[in-house]
Amino acid sequence: MQHLKHCQVLAQVFFIRSQSSRLSKSVIPSLSVWDGHLSCRWRSTGGHGRQKYFNDRLPKFRFALAGLLAGTGAVLAYKRHQDKVQWAATSAQLRVTQTSDLPVYTLEEVTKHCSLDSGVWVTYKGAVYDITEFVAIHPGGDKILLAAGGALEPYWALYAVHQQDHVLEILSEYKIGVLDTESYKKQESANPLDPYSAEPTRHPALQINSLKPFNAEPPASILSDNYITPSVIFFKRNHLPVPRVDPEAYRLEIEGLPGGVVSLSLSELKSRFPKHTITATLQCAGNRRSEMNKVKQVKGLNWGIAAISNATWSGARLRDVLLSYGFGAEVAAKAKHVQFEGLDKDVTGTAYGASIPLNNAVSEEGDVLLAYEMNGEDLPPDHGYPVRVVVPGVVGARNVKWLGKIVVSDEESKSHWQQNDYKGFSPGTDWDTVDFKSAPAIQELPIQSAITHPAEGTSVDCSDREVTVKGYAWSGGGREVVRVDVSVDGGKTWHVAKLRTSDQEQHPAPPPPPGRAWAWKLWEIDVPIPYRAQELEIVCKAVDSSYNMQPDTVAPIWNLRGVLSNAWHRVKVKVSEGFKDQK
Amino acid sequence: MQHLKHCQVLAQVFFIRSQSSRLSKSVIPSLSVWDGHLSCRWRSTGGHGRQKYFNDRLPKFRFALAGLLAGTGAVLAYKRHQDKVQWAATSAQLRVTQTSDLPVYTLEEVTKHCSLDSGVWVTYKGAVYDITEFVAIHPGGDKILLAAGGALEPYWALYAVHQQDHVLEILSEYKIGVLDTESYKKQESANPLDPYSAEPTRHPALQINSLKPFNAEPPASILSDNYITPSVIFFKRNHLPVPRVDPEAYRLEIEGLPGGVVSLSLSELKSRFPKHTITATLQCAGNRRSEMNKVKQVKGLNWGIAAISNATWSGARLRDVLLSYGFGAEVAAKAKHVQFEGLDKDVTGTAYGASIPLNNAVSEEGDVLLAYEMNGEDLPPDHGYPVRVVVPGVVGARNVKWLGKIVVSDEESKSHWQQNDYKGFSPGTDWDTVDFKSAPAIQELPIQSAITHPAEGTSVDCSDREVTVKGYAWSGGGREVVRVDVSVDGGKTWHVAKLRTSDQEQHPAPPPPPGRAWAWKLWEIDVPIPYRAQELEIVCKAVDSSYNMQPDTVAPIWNLRGVLSNAWHRVKVKVSEGFKDQK
Repeated sequence: MQHLKHCQVLAQVFFIRSQSSRLSKSVIPSLSVWDGHLSCRWRSTGGHGRQKYFNDRLPKFRFALAGLLAGTGAVLAYKRHQDKVQWAATSAQLRVTQTSDLPVYTLEEVTKHCSLDSGVWVTYKGAVYDITEFVAIHPGGDKILLAAGGALEPYWALYAVHQQDHVLEILSEYKIGVLDTESYKKQESANPLDPYSAEPTRHPALQINSLKPFNAEPPASILSDNYITPSVIFFKRNHLPVPRVDPEAYRLEIEGLPGGVVSLSLSELKSRFPKHTITATLQCAGNRRSEMNKVKQVKGLNWGIAAISNATWSGARLRDVLLSYGFGAEVAAKAKHVQFEGLDKDVTGTAYGASIPLNNAVSEEGDVLLAYEMNGEDLPPDHGYPVRVVVPGVVGARNVKWLGKIVVSDEESKSHWQQNDYKGFSPGTDWDTVDFKSAPAIQELPIQSAITHPAEGTSVDCSDREVTVKGYAWSGGGREVVRVDVSVDGGKTWHVAKLRTSDQEQHPAPPPPPGRAWAWKLWEIDVPIPYRAQELEIVCKAVDSSYNMQPDTVAPIWNLRGVLSNAWHRVKVKVSEGFKDQK
Repeated sequence: MQHLKHCQVLAQVFFIRSQSSRLSKSVIPSLSVWDGHLSCRWRSTGGHGRQKYFNDRLPKFRFALAGLLAGTGAVLAYKRHQDKVQWAATSAQLRVTQTSDLPVYTLEEVTKHCSLDSGVWVTYKGAVYDITEFVAIHPGGDKILLAAGGALEPYWALYAVHQQDHVLEILSEYKIGVLDTESYKKQESANPLDPYSAEPTRHPALQINSLKPFNAEPPASILSDNYITPSVIFFKRNHLPVPRVDPEAYRLEIEGLPGGVVSLSLSELKSRFPKHTITATLQCAGNRRSEMNKVKQVKGLNWGIAAISNATWSGARLRDVLLSYGFGAEVAAKAKHVQFEGLDKDVTGTAYGASIPLNNAVSEEGDVLLAYEMNGEDLPPDHGYPVRVVVPGVVGARNVKWLGKIVVSDEESKSHWQQNDYKGFSPGTDWDTVDFKSAPAIQELPIQSAITHPAEGTSVDCSDREVTVKGYAWSGGGREVVRVDVSVDGGKTWHVAKLRTSDQEQHPAPPPPPGRAWAWKLWEIDVPIPYRAQELEIVCKAVDSSYNMQPDTVAPIWNLRGVLSNAWHRVKVKVSEGFKDQK
């Protein structure tokens, strides 16, 4: 509820500002959660008071921060390339310019301004800002007070979304002075290290949606070249910095079973339970969000069509592990959910978390894995090394990486990502009216397909008078894709594509048992180019084994978080003159 | 394959004729399967030969007849009221008129014309027809030879679809004479009784789509008045005459289990297994087919929006019964399907049949019942008395009524309805190109919703400036309906309807466990009427727990059998002048 209220406040501010300047993307405020409030209280009340304050506030702050820093923290991180994200040079200018005639403050003076009563001051790169008046219009509501009296850097370092020119422009309006040199040095040395300094190296082909946390997708043109997506180009969706886990020290805790807390080492997980391998496609709830953005701006990473990939995963079945440690009828009578916590944490120590329904977790047919291998090798750091959950058929967000804890519970995960994110709403629901409790957390995803070839805006010059169209199709819940229809005239006439379940040189996989089709199908078709066509609107739509179909258009499924974007995929291409002359 | 070929032949003839006169529904030929061929051979070869012939041909004929008489036999049965179906008076005229100057034949002479070599003659109501030339253009292919040399009545009695004026018109073109009085009397006394003479009495509110077999739906306006549909108006979908079963003599056979064939009486079924009750919605695959017919004519009963209803069902769990008679890992290692056979049979003795995947049949969460009660009473005759299968979440066609046999098998049911009907195809697939093996048999149905109030073409006169919209929503596979969006401007803006899971005076049902939401939700909403609107295009679309959505429009999901019609439902109403004047 607490967080919900803040979301609403955020929403209201967001809309006020949006209305005042609808045309400019750059003036939509991003979220700002600034350090300082905690440190201010710590300083003024000493060690005991600091601990007490922390104890009193921690649950609330943790909850709020989890949302602000990680969930909606990803808000408005517009797609841009890595070099654009490397903005440090620009921001460093802030201190150098326009500072000559401004007062100089000490850190001690700044820390006194840590409330609305005393004024709200913050520092950034050695400059001092009085943001008292900004508090009321801050998109994150009064959470901005967390930052009062101290440095922004520790928070902004966590979320590159703040690191955009328009945020700095807004900040610059509130500048009142600079820190004295000694204070600045002291503050700099006290700032934590960049939590992203130990991020793994990534493949240069990845198209980055946000650098910190790292979110990237492969180019659509190469996505469907491999039935099993190579791990290096498998889409990356991180909510927080990648934790570096020592495999020797790693422990997986399991709570909620009759024998008390279980603590399992990596080697125990590998040796005590049969190794089970599945091929499963994972998809981000926000895949194809960019198409919703074209209808009306939504909040979230601006994914293209490649926030989906397919891999083999090996590990222990969650079912085997739970049964081994006492799960049975007694637990099942009370428990309804299995919660997962990652080892990836924000500055307040809040871990990424999610849950799935108990029946999915323990079902023999559910194939839920505690996976330690991806494509036959140890999990890469970006994909959850040393252990992650793989819940096939279910939205990526529940496939918790860097798994630290499992809790068998009568409740869903209380995490921001389960409660106040990753849910679908009506197109008529906006941030003023949304009630996150009214919608179920996304679990199984609906039928999906997209065209990976040809690319939008390219030309086809078909001496053979056909255009080759390729793509992928997948559905959640183990529902097998049974058909993909392709049109080159915007959906007036349809052709049935050829599906495949392996790379071309390999034997096709045997058909999966009913309800356990976890992997996508790649598809391809040569469609005759209509006579005298100058442009083709290529469209695809898939059908799954429950005969679910994709909706025709984006606008009627638009939702404020831009999730579940699964309308027909449309690509427009030109037909080259060469072809038309031959007719 | 045999049957498939005939379907293609039928399709070709159908299309030739359709093309020649696209404008007239009345000239599209209906299926004709005429008696005579069998009786011709019986007469000419005597008792022994007759038996031999029957044994040789029976499997093939059974298979073909099953399709022709029951599956595609329902083809082109246009919606009409009961009184129109009572056509006997009209057809009786055939013999009386235009017969004075025609030759008179004996039955013996007719029976000699039982092949293409000898000419193909048939009789109907005492008139004789030489249909030799019609054989090549008969929609049912050479199956028409089954009727050579004898009377049509036994077959036409089974399927009222033949009993339409345009069929009689076509027949009259081939008239060559009349039977002598003695032959006619002899033939009349030999004709079997009308297999539909013992049909149960039906509620007068039902809107009949076909009388023989009986197919009817309640008026949409009363469908959503009850959360639990009263049995008398629950939609009726019969493929064959309703068998009258003596409960004392009833036996349910079970094959494919280690101990050999099990034979179970009704009282044993009731006493040996726990009685389990579920509330489950059943829907015909052809529900809302009439909307597809508006895009392009399809084959099948012209259902409106009410081939769906909701009831409570009580019986033994199929799982319990199978486990009790030896189902276990050994059987599960080989078997993949559970087949059902009804006691409803066609003239060749072929029973209605269908199958479901084994994992659905034996799953604890599948809730598949051998039901003997509907809404707290014995099953009514139209709904399968004394025992039917209820496979919640799965298309009506697999919920086999008047259950006679269960077979645990490695194969799907070989019945026409499983193999060559109740499958979905691309809109680009027609009867020339269809390959029934290329599509899976429909099991779980996709998300569905429709508007039951207001009715199409009515007026709203809203002094309160709102229009009340009501309807139902349901999804297959136990996926719960989580939201229904309603628009009154054709889908531009959307409002979220209020859902209910009980009748208004009752307490709402507790939420179902995940994946076991078998019952529909009724919904209602008051939507403001847009200022100065003269007409409203009311639209609804539902979302299920896997966030599957309905497609926007009908044409792109059109398929040659007119199944799976689940696009947004649209109803146009006028806004009365009274309302507009108040603004």
